[in-house]
Amino acid sequence: MLVKDKRIAAEGVNTLHKTFDISGHAELQAIRKAQAKLKTNDLSDCSIYASGEPCAMCLTAMYFTGIRKIYYSSSLAEAVANGFEKSEVMTDQNLKQLKDSMIYLPLAGTVDDPVRLWAEGVNK
Amino acid sequence: MLVKDKRIAAEGVNTLHKTFDISGHAELQAIRKAQAKLKTNDLSDCSIYASGEPCAMCLTAMYFTGIRKIYYSSSLAEAVANGFEKSEVMTDQNLKQLKDSMIYLPLAGTVDDPVRLWAEGVNK
Repeated sequence: MLVKDKRIAAEGVNTLHKTFDISGHAELQAIRKAQAKLKTNDLSDCSIYASGEPCAMCLTAMYFTGIRKIYYSSSLAEAVANGFEKSEVMTDQNLKQLKDSMIYLPLAGTVDDPVRLWAEGVNK
Repeated sequence: MLVKDKRIAAEGVNTLHKTFDISGHAELQAIRKAQAKLKTNDLSDCSIYASGEPCAMCLTAMYFTGIRKIYYSSSLAEAVANGFEKSEVMTDQNLKQLKDSMIYLPLAGTVDDPVRLWAEGVNK
């Protein structure tokens, strides 16, 4: 639930068990709804209330939209203790391992280097 | 770009500048397309190729869908050096700070405790 000016700006419900869309967490649904409604990428004046502790996907979406007041009512540890699926759990360690496993294939200096092409475009 | 069995399973393009949807990163678009096409939450047999270093949002989506082979051609540091917007940058430190700032409002033990209600439901 996203709250702005003491009113509900948007609500989201987890749709993971309905559709094949991993981004269907309740937090991300609420953020998308609020963005579409308010036509903005800036939700810095909103607070978010989540039933479960937000995962790194949703936290990052909050970060990018400027949301800094985040409340949750049950921790990841509580969820795990109550039988949450292993696949739905992302720990700091899991994230770090995945990040460390990424493979860097640089195009820097080549004709197709996307960063250089982008920089040339915006600096025109 | 998501690759499965040496063929392109799905492609995604960043839509952040077109629509108000923070989850419009190319990686997440490709994942959603592949999920819709293949009707699965399991993309563990796919590799992903990204132009820029994936953020924690997209990495977590990869984690949840089982994607473990991740390639990228330009680092976050390169993007920043070439003038990427500050708002589009999420460092490990930013994520940690946001995570540490979250406020836990436990409902544990109350009649409305969502984790308990969920656990009761699945263990019926």
